[in-house]
Amino acid sequence: MNIERWVPVVGWLRRYSRALLFKDSLAAVIVTLMLVPQALAYALLAGLPPEMGLYASMLPLVLYAIFGTSASLAVGPVAVAALMTASALSSFATPGSPEYIGAALVLAALSGLILIAMGVLRLGFLVNFLSHPVISGFITASGILIAISQLKHILGVEAAGHNVIELLGALFNQWQQINLITLLIGLGVWGYLLVCRKRLNTWLMAIGISASASGLMVKAAPISAVMVTTLLAWHFNLGQYGVNLVGFVPSGLPAITLPSLDQSLWLGLLPAALLISLVGFVESVSVAQTLAAKRRQRIDPNQELIALGMANLGAGVSGGSPVSGGFSRSVVNFEAGAATPLAGAFTALGIVLSTLLLTGLLAFLPTATLAATIIVAVGTLIDLPAVKRTWQYSRSDGVAMVATLLLTLLHSVEVGIISGVVLSLGLHLYRTSQPHSAVVGRVPGTEHFRNVKRHEVETDQHVAMLRIDESLYFANARYLEDTVMALAARSPTLKHIVLTCQAVNVIDASALESLEAINGRLKDAGATLHLAEVKGPVMDRLTNTALYRELTGQVFFTTYEAWQTLALPTQNEEPQPYTY
Amino acid sequence: MNIERWVPVVGWLRRYSRALLFKDSLAAVIVTLMLVPQALAYALLAGLPPEMGLYASMLPLVLYAIFGTSASLAVGPVAVAALMTASALSSFATPGSPEYIGAALVLAALSGLILIAMGVLRLGFLVNFLSHPVISGFITASGILIAISQLKHILGVEAAGHNVIELLGALFNQWQQINLITLLIGLGVWGYLLVCRKRLNTWLMAIGISASASGLMVKAAPISAVMVTTLLAWHFNLGQYGVNLVGFVPSGLPAITLPSLDQSLWLGLLPAALLISLVGFVESVSVAQTLAAKRRQRIDPNQELIALGMANLGAGVSGGSPVSGGFSRSVVNFEAGAATPLAGAFTALGIVLSTLLLTGLLAFLPTATLAATIIVAVGTLIDLPAVKRTWQYSRSDGVAMVATLLLTLLHSVEVGIISGVVLSLGLHLYRTSQPHSAVVGRVPGTEHFRNVKRHEVETDQHVAMLRIDESLYFANARYLEDTVMALAARSPTLKHIVLTCQAVNVIDASALESLEAINGRLKDAGATLHLAEVKGPVMDRLTNTALYRELTGQVFFTTYEAWQTLALPTQNEEPQPYTY
Repeated sequence: MNIERWVPVVGWLRRYSRALLFKDSLAAVIVTLMLVPQALAYALLAGLPPEMGLYASMLPLVLYAIFGTSASLAVGPVAVAALMTASALSSFATPGSPEYIGAALVLAALSGLILIAMGVLRLGFLVNFLSHPVISGFITASGILIAISQLKHILGVEAAGHNVIELLGALFNQWQQINLITLLIGLGVWGYLLVCRKRLNTWLMAIGISASASGLMVKAAPISAVMVTTLLAWHFNLGQYGVNLVGFVPSGLPAITLPSLDQSLWLGLLPAALLISLVGFVESVSVAQTLAAKRRQRIDPNQELIALGMANLGAGVSGGSPVSGGFSRSVVNFEAGAATPLAGAFTALGIVLSTLLLTGLLAFLPTATLAATIIVAVGTLIDLPAVKRTWQYSRSDGVAMVATLLLTLLHSVEVGIISGVVLSLGLHLYRTSQPHSAVVGRVPGTEHFRNVKRHEVETDQHVAMLRIDESLYFANARYLEDTVMALAARSPTLKHIVLTCQAVNVIDASALESLEAINGRLKDAGATLHLAEVKGPVMDRLTNTALYRELTGQVFFTTYEAWQTLALPTQNEEPQPYTY
Repeated sequence: MNIERWVPVVGWLRRYSRALLFKDSLAAVIVTLMLVPQALAYALLAGLPPEMGLYASMLPLVLYAIFGTSASLAVGPVAVAALMTASALSSFATPGSPEYIGAALVLAALSGLILIAMGVLRLGFLVNFLSHPVISGFITASGILIAISQLKHILGVEAAGHNVIELLGALFNQWQQINLITLLIGLGVWGYLLVCRKRLNTWLMAIGISASASGLMVKAAPISAVMVTTLLAWHFNLGQYGVNLVGFVPSGLPAITLPSLDQSLWLGLLPAALLISLVGFVESVSVAQTLAAKRRQRIDPNQELIALGMANLGAGVSGGSPVSGGFSRSVVNFEAGAATPLAGAFTALGIVLSTLLLTGLLAFLPTATLAATIIVAVGTLIDLPAVKRTWQYSRSDGVAMVATLLLTLLHSVEVGIISGVVLSLGLHLYRTSQPHSAVVGRVPGTEHFRNVKRHEVETDQHVAMLRIDESLYFANARYLEDTVMALAARSPTLKHIVLTCQAVNVIDASALESLEAINGRLKDAGATLHLAEVKGPVMDRLTNTALYRELTGQVFFTTYEAWQTLALPTQNEEPQPYTY
């Protein structure tokens, strides 16, 4: 048993050096500055007390550093997981209640166990069934949904809902309760962050700061907004004017406790935990792979399942919300020079220090500031041009994407993503259930055979050559029967049907039976069935079957050989030499 | 609007002749003789009063004759549909109760509406997702289940259950209640029918009767068993010795009534109706296609949906149980010379006459006779060698088949078939999510490229040629990324990666994004990506994409062209032959 495979830290820690220590520490400082406001904001988004976001940024990061294979992935609370957490928990308890918090811990622990189990069982391939368009549509819709859900904090009103319609309806009903000071703070921070994002980079570079350093400073802009608005709220005692503040945040470290073992709660949260796990894993692996490839490194997706699973399990037992790999923080971590997963452990240390030292101050942080931070952050998730691009490239992918997007927005995150997966699978199966096939004829003077409908080719009234452009399996087996029998019914003079199989990678048992049926029916109708260009592995299997024994015709090596044998039975002259 | 397309009778009735009339009538007489005991037996199997089997053989047959496209398909009550009906209804009411009978009518009407809707919406392709192994495993298990469920009638005891375990357990508990006279009748009829099936044909042919005529007489053997045992029961008044008889059968014709419109009942029966519709349709179309092909005729599957739908709807409004096309009766119909769907309408007339004239006698028919008839009939459904054959041909098909068979036997028909469908889809998707690919090299002196692991071929340390043996879609897109990046990480000298795509029929949006990611990552790593042998329709789509614009390498027409361009840029001599 190779311990390095399951606990990668054992391998890379042996080769750790002072140079790496410096790089990892620097990256950790920058990521910590970015993570503090995000941890608070995503706890707010999930309907949880702010300290749960901080707790989710301690033990989980250390566990990921021990088990993870990516040097750059920054684990912790993320926007989409927070949205999905809020959606999952709201049907079990009131946001903020002890039951709600307890359910959040169960959700994190359950997600962790699911991920670990998938990793141990090497089930990482399951995420392949979340297609890019479905993920992309879901992330865009989540971004919009998150942004709209945060408007209430900017406006200083109460509004809850699972989808865009409910949220906007609730906001509309509350418009008379708008708190102007809150609105001012919210819009101020929003505008400030937008300006930082769009202009600050250029300004900083104009005064001679390097591109990467200025990029990192832009990413750390929210911390300045947090500091300024916290000081304002403290100085002017804004709480008494109805501005909603974060309030008391305990300054100690979380206790390690087992989450509730209520069986019905675990069962009830299972579907949501599965979705959060899969979506979080897909996002984490995508960003980790992209960053690893830039340094010609590789990550191990199955080990990532275990590492993310341990991180979530860690969150569940140390008072944290579900975690995953964050896109923007990972990019910052990478650009700041993180060289090993230890950068994440140092980030955890940074969060611990912040929690011990800063929580007294954080009590005065306006929630509007956090909401504005979230809105600007999720702006990068929303990619509407991708919808148009996907729709133009492939109608069925476009349909799956739009359906996921609309159902997530208009119904709920769970229904949105499940519908997307089912629809994309259904459309894929539908497409392969009616595979392209073409009757081909010989391009004169060559050994090439092309579609009779597109090219001027030689044909023979006794011979039909049908090229099959798909593997043959149960979903298209009957379609094959229909196609071949329609061909036979159309041409009464037909004596030979040749199926050319260069694109057939598999013939499953259903297709085999269909071929047997075709062979038998053609025989009854006085015609013979031949095969051509059957691939090696397919042929290996066919040789032991009834089809092979009872085939009325032959199996030809090439289409040309079939043509020579069947279409020119009485001629002796060689066909013309042919230049490719 | 072409009325013939939707109501085929309009077409063929115009060309009807006296010769056809004779053929159809003869076939109808023979099928009627076979259908009377079957109709009673399958009503018994479904837990319904005997007349419902007869009613299901009247109006439905006439409606199929009007809308159907098969000249040979004999519609009516069938064993598998009867089993599924019993299984579906038993969770709604006690067998034989008015609620149970009402639910059976709803089930028939609902199946009819589903089939009609599928036909109008051209959804016939949906049945393609029932793979041959799943259907075959399901039918074999149904046959075993039906046979075991009939043992109680042979033994003269009460026993009910949804699966083999429950049924055998119930029988075991009742063994002291066995009625010896019933057992004698049951075993007698069973033995008689088996002898008829195995020997009668040979005997009849030995005394000079033609093969087809003796075959038809064998098929009509059950009617003689019915007559003899009915007369015995009447003569010896066997009812008073505890022999269970069919009892009073009303001699009139069924009234046309609307089935119950109870919404919760309709909703509750929907899943079962869907399964019965799909299974019945698959079986009907398979037998109809096989028989049609023998005469080089064709049937229209979507019109068959409508015809079978009308037949079931007819059953639902005229007191009948769900119907479908029966395998053995259709073969008999075909062999007896049925030339048009009118043979079915004449059969309905035969059943009407039988009902009017014979029901007084049928009251004395022992149920043990019917049970023996069913057991012998379903023997043809059980095909255990097919399990071994399928398992040997394809492990994943074998797994789906065995799972369907076992779950149907040990749990229930619904769980059995649904698990089979889900499993076969899952296994198919799993298989295509890890497609075969091979690094290929040049067969020396040719333009052919083969797998480096299987053949002695030329390779180049700067160029890797990867042949992809599957269409690229979301389920295998990430696997492609892994494969290509692993290849790049393995060979530090690699400068060019060529994907040869002759087996790629589709590149969906997910695979496109993966190719873009691969292109970008290889670029970061200092290598270029090329494509070769891209099919026309795939290339048409690619030309408008970011991948095509940003591709670091080229798109080559052939693999050989790529080799010539990339592998030998400066050398003039031939490369050394290379053994992998």
